[in-house]
Formats: sequence, C-alpha cells, structure tokens
Amino acid sequence: MARVGLVSELRASCPRPEAPQPRQARAKPLPGAETAPEVDAASRRRPGPRGRRLAQLLRRQRAEYGALRAMEGYRGFLALLVSALLVGFLSVIFTLIWVLHYREGLGWDGTALEFNWHPVLLVTGFVFILGIAIIVYRLPWTWKCSKLLMKSIHAGLNTVAAILAVISLVAVFDFHNAKKIPNMYSLHSWVGLTAVILYILQLLLGFFVFLLPWAPLSLRALLMPIHVYSGLLIFGTVIATVLMGLTEKLIFALKSPSYSSLPPEGIFTNTLGLLILVFGALIFWIVTRPQWKRPKEPNSVLLQPNGGAPEGVESSMAMNFGNVDKSDSELNSEAAARKRNITLDEAGQRSTM
Amino acid sequence: MARVGLVSELRASCPRPEAPQPRQARAKPLPGAETAPEVDAASRRRPGPRGRRLAQLLRRQRAEYGALRAMEGYRGFLALLVSALLVGFLSVIFTLIWVLHYREGLGWDGTALEFNWHPVLLVTGFVFILGIAIIVYRLPWTWKCSKLLMKSIHAGLNTVAAILAVISLVAVFDFHNAKKIPNMYSLHSWVGLTAVILYILQLLLGFFVFLLPWAPLSLRALLMPIHVYSGLLIFGTVIATVLMGLTEKLIFALKSPSYSSLPPEGIFTNTLGLLILVFGALIFWIVTRPQWKRPKEPNSVLLQPNGGAPEGVESSMAMNFGNVDKSDSELNSEAAARKRNITLDEAGQRSTM
Repeated sequence: MARVGLVSELRASCPRPEAPQPRQARAKPLPGAETAPEVDAASRRRPGPRGRRLAQLLRRQRAEYGALRAMEGYRGFLALLVSALLVGFLSVIFTLIWVLHYREGLGWDGTALEFNWHPVLLVTGFVFILGIAIIVYRLPWTWKCSKLLMKSIHAGLNTVAAILAVISLVAVFDFHNAKKIPNMYSLHSWVGLTAVILYILQLLLGFFVFLLPWAPLSLRALLMPIHVYSGLLIFGTVIATVLMGLTEKLIFALKSPSYSSLPPEGIFTNTLGLLILVFGALIFWIVTRPQWKRPKEPNSVLLQPNGGAPEGVESSMAMNFGNVDKSDSELNSEAAARKRNITLDEAGQRSTM
Repeated sequence: MARVGLVSELRASCPRPEAPQPRQARAKPLPGAETAPEVDAASRRRPGPRGRRLAQLLRRQRAEYGALRAMEGYRGFLALLVSALLVGFLSVIFTLIWVLHYREGLGWDGTALEFNWHPVLLVTGFVFILGIAIIVYRLPWTWKCSKLLMKSIHAGLNTVAAILAVISLVAVFDFHNAKKIPNMYSLHSWVGLTAVILYILQLLLGFFVFLLPWAPLSLRALLMPIHVYSGLLIFGTVIATVLMGLTEKLIFALKSPSYSSLPPEGIFTNTLGLLILVFGALIFWIVTRPQWKRPKEPNSVLLQPNGGAPEGVESSMAMNFGNVDKSDSELNSEAAARKRNITLDEAGQRSTM
C-alpha cells in the first residue's frame, strides 16, 4: 500500500474512452421538487394510483434534469477547453507572424534570426504545451485511463516544454554573445532563468517521486501539494516573464516609428500579450474547478485514517470507474485535509481557492 | 434561509479572539497507535486494570500528539504570515527607497516626482494591501469573529487598494499629459488598465452581492467561485503588470550607465521585482492551503441537498465555534461540488488546485 506497483499500473488502458454518459449522472433535485423523497417514501407505503403516477413523473423529471445538467456541464467544459486550445494556438501563430512578418524571421546564425527562436519556442513550449500539460488530468474522457498513462502524458508534455525552453535560452545567449550584448542584467532574465531552473527541478521531482514507482505514499502525500502549487506558480511566473520580454523587445526594436506612436507591430504584439494572458486565465479556471478534477477511486476510503468514507461513499454512488489506480489515492483528499483543520497541519493534501 | 439578515449578522463579535486552542484539536492517530480503537472497544467491555491503564496511556499520548501538531501547524502558519508581511513591507520600503534615493523623489507637479507616486501607490495598495485583503479570512484567530466583520475588513482593505490604484493612474496620466508622452500605448498600460477596471467591477460585485444582505443565497453560490477566482487572477495580473512597469522604467530611465551594464539601481530594482514575486508566491501558498481556510459552520449541513452531512459531521466533531454566520454556508462546499462530479456542473462551488 505504501508504494505503487509498476506492474499493476502497467495495466494502462482506457477501457471506455468515451465521455461520461449523462445517464450515469446523479440528478440534482429539480427546483420545486423538494418533496420528491416524501412522495417516494409514501409510495413505498402502498400508494394509490395517483401517488404512483406522481412519483413516476417526478423520477422521470429528475432523470431528465440530471441528464440535461450533465450534458450542459460537459458542453461547458468542452467550450472552455476549445477556447483555451484556440487562444493558446492563436498565441503561437501570433508569435510566428510577429517574428516572420514584423521581425527578421528565423535562423541559427547568431543574428536577430536566432534570437527570434526565443519567443517562438517559449510561447510554444513554456506557455502553450505547459498549459495543456497542466490540464491533461482534467479531461473527462481520460478519467477511465490508468493513472500511469496520464502521468506519462503529463511528464512527456512537460519534458517537451523543458527542452524547448532550454533551446530558447541557448538561442538568446548565443545571440547576446555574438552581438556582445550583456547577459542576465534585466529583471526579465532574472525571473525567467529562475523559472527555468525551478521548472527543471519540478520535472525531476515529478519523475522520481510521482512517475517512478519507488517513492513511498507518505512522501508523495507530502510533496503533491507542493508539486501542484509550484507547477501553477511556475506557469504564472512564465506568463509574467513573457509579458516582460515582449515589453523589452518592443521598446528596443520599435524605434521609427517608436513604440509610443503605437505602430501596427505594437498593436499586434500587445494583442499577443493579451492572448497569452487570456490563455493563462483559461488554464487557471479549468484547473481550479472541483467538478473537473480527476475523480478519486472508490477504494481510496481504505486509506482514510478513520476508515470512514464521507467522500468515498459519494464516489462509489456517483461514479462507476472500472479501472482506477491506487497510487496517489487520497493524496488530494479535501476531507482528509478538513479533518486537520484545527490542527493546522502543514502537509495540506490539497489546495483550495 | 435564502438571504442573510443584516440584523443577525450585526451580532459582529470575536467572542474568543485568541488563537485556536491546541487542546481542541482532533488528534491524528499516533504512528504505531492504530490499535487504539480496538483497545477502547475492549475497555468498554469491562477491561481489566491493565487494559484501562493502556487505554488511558494511549489517549494521553494521542492528546499530546494532537496538541503538538496543532502547535506546529499554528507556528508554521505564523511563520508564513510573518514572512509574507515582511516581504510585502520590504517591497513597499524598496519602492520608496527607489523613488527617493535613486529617482527624483515625490511630488505632485506634473514632473517625474508626480510619476513616482505611480509605483509607490501601486506597490502599497495593489500589491501589499490587496495581498493582505486576500488572506484576511485565513487568519485562525479571526475564525470566531462574525463573517460580517471579516467581510467588512476584506472590503475595506480592497477599497483602500482601489483608491490608491486610481490615484496612481491619475499620477501617471498627469505626468504623461504634462510631458506630452502618449498614454496607453504599452502592453503594461493595456494590461494594467484592464486589471484596474476588472478590480473595480470585482469590488462592486463583492459589495452588492456578498456584503449587502439582499442577494439570494443561490446568486452568492453562483458568483462566489467567480469572485474568488477573479480576485486571485487580478492579483496575479497586477504582479505581472508591476514587473512589466519596472522593466519599462529601468530601460527608459537608466541611460548612463545603461541598464545593461547593471548599475546599482538596476540590481536594486530587479531585487524589488523579485521581492514582489516572492510576496505573491507566499500569498498564493497561504490562500490555497485547505487547513487554513475559515471553517464552515456546523449548521451548514442543513443546506445540503440530501440533508446528509459527510463534511458537516466532520465539522461538528472537529470544531467548536460558538458564533458563526450562516450567510455563505455551503457556498464553498467541496462535498457539494463532488456530488456533481459526473454531471460536470459549471457552477462549481469551490476551487481546487
């Protein structure tokens, strides 16, 4: 129980990759139908034909209402996801248009063409791919996939983002050295390099503690909230750094006409900055909604200190997951954290906003 | 039940303003003491003197362990709070030193002296005071205060921050107009003005929906997660905007020696940027720990759709709050949100990270 068996995790599969079925939804009471349980109770006490018809009608109404809400909620999630993908993709496209149309283009020759890989690779890897990596556990159709598969996708996307970030740093250092421009003097460079170093540490921590099967559950429980928090902090810091970088570049590059006269390139690149900010806001919204969190497996109640199952019962009532992994079970339990509310335990299991 | 009575809320008091007593804490099981419940059960079946002594010893050990954990957790919170206050205060002091020692000083004459109020007021109001306003509900010694009192403090701090932000905008527009510098061309200005407008809307929404007693509970439940999310988003955006502003100002102002030669002012102001970032990171950590969230009142179970009380039972077991307000009860219920996990309801009651 203390650690994860890789063999058992390797039963990696998505047995039913389709979206959650609305009919599995637990219906919320219909507005105005609060008396339904009483009616049901009455119907169990040999109701008359009128009572049976009423109970049947209310049950049907509730089922329809639940299905409708599930469908609406799922559509809402899809709309947000598509918006995030669209805005993220637009950010990458805008960056490419910026360097190809307004700036010098791309190359690897120590000139501004090499520098231009810096924004392109950072917006692609450190903003767009990192943003997707953050929300990959939230996609409802992956909830039936094994946790190992999802962790591998999360780790893979983050590895790609880290590689692109490192190449983008090489590009800017190469450019500075070739042009005899000092390195590491600006606030942008201080914050940016700190973010890249923290990100690589985060990646190594994630790999050794959460992906490899050897770390004990207690260590995972201790580090999970830090991992989640620092991932989001790095993402936010990266966005702030990109906005600083755009500001720097526009002030340095736009001379005639100057940035202050707001030429088309200024408007275009300011818009790129806003797109990146909106992308970040969408990712933060998606990742902080409780209803889109990958559900805990029903068996997680075994790990609750008191063996009780307030949330576990909910899970088993509301969910029907055939293939769930026990590796990080209860790591994120709000209920467990709530139990320590007064004891103010530092090792919070889950963040709340 | 649907709305809050101002009269009942006006029983605003902090009956026992001291920190939560560790002895009230619900002890976590001692490592190695998992058999305690069995021993207790055995002792209820007329145990022998040895069984009674063992049970008594285990109970005492658990109580001591719980008290120790509560004390440690409380000290951990205090350490973080003091760190945040210190770093926030240092940020304000650094900003003052920057404009008074390295720049022209302060004044209100359309010159750079007037501009300098812009960073001073923004770092004071929009970073430091806003940060404190965000975590004001998290202070454990306020958990016994009425919600109305805490809301008033939250609203008051935010109002001060908004006033300072508006004055800081007047300062920079005045300066620009006097010097014939165009307004609103930079990404800093676009993002910053957006943040100020959203912040004022957020303040008005908070005032009319959460502070005044007339909004129905359903509206509060719908808007609370948006209010929390947008508050944190605005705070993060403000920090990014401040970092952009520092970058702009250093590039414009440091000419001989230039910013790229990293003169003392460059190092000093870059350090100010890092301090502001660390302050933001501390506030985000404090506000996203579940164990430091203002506890729900035990009566909140009345509002649960099924009348059940998985968390409510926990609350009543673990907490002992004499004076709690019912206004926003269950607004933040993770349990309620979890119930809608499959239905993917958009109106998430609480954020998770």
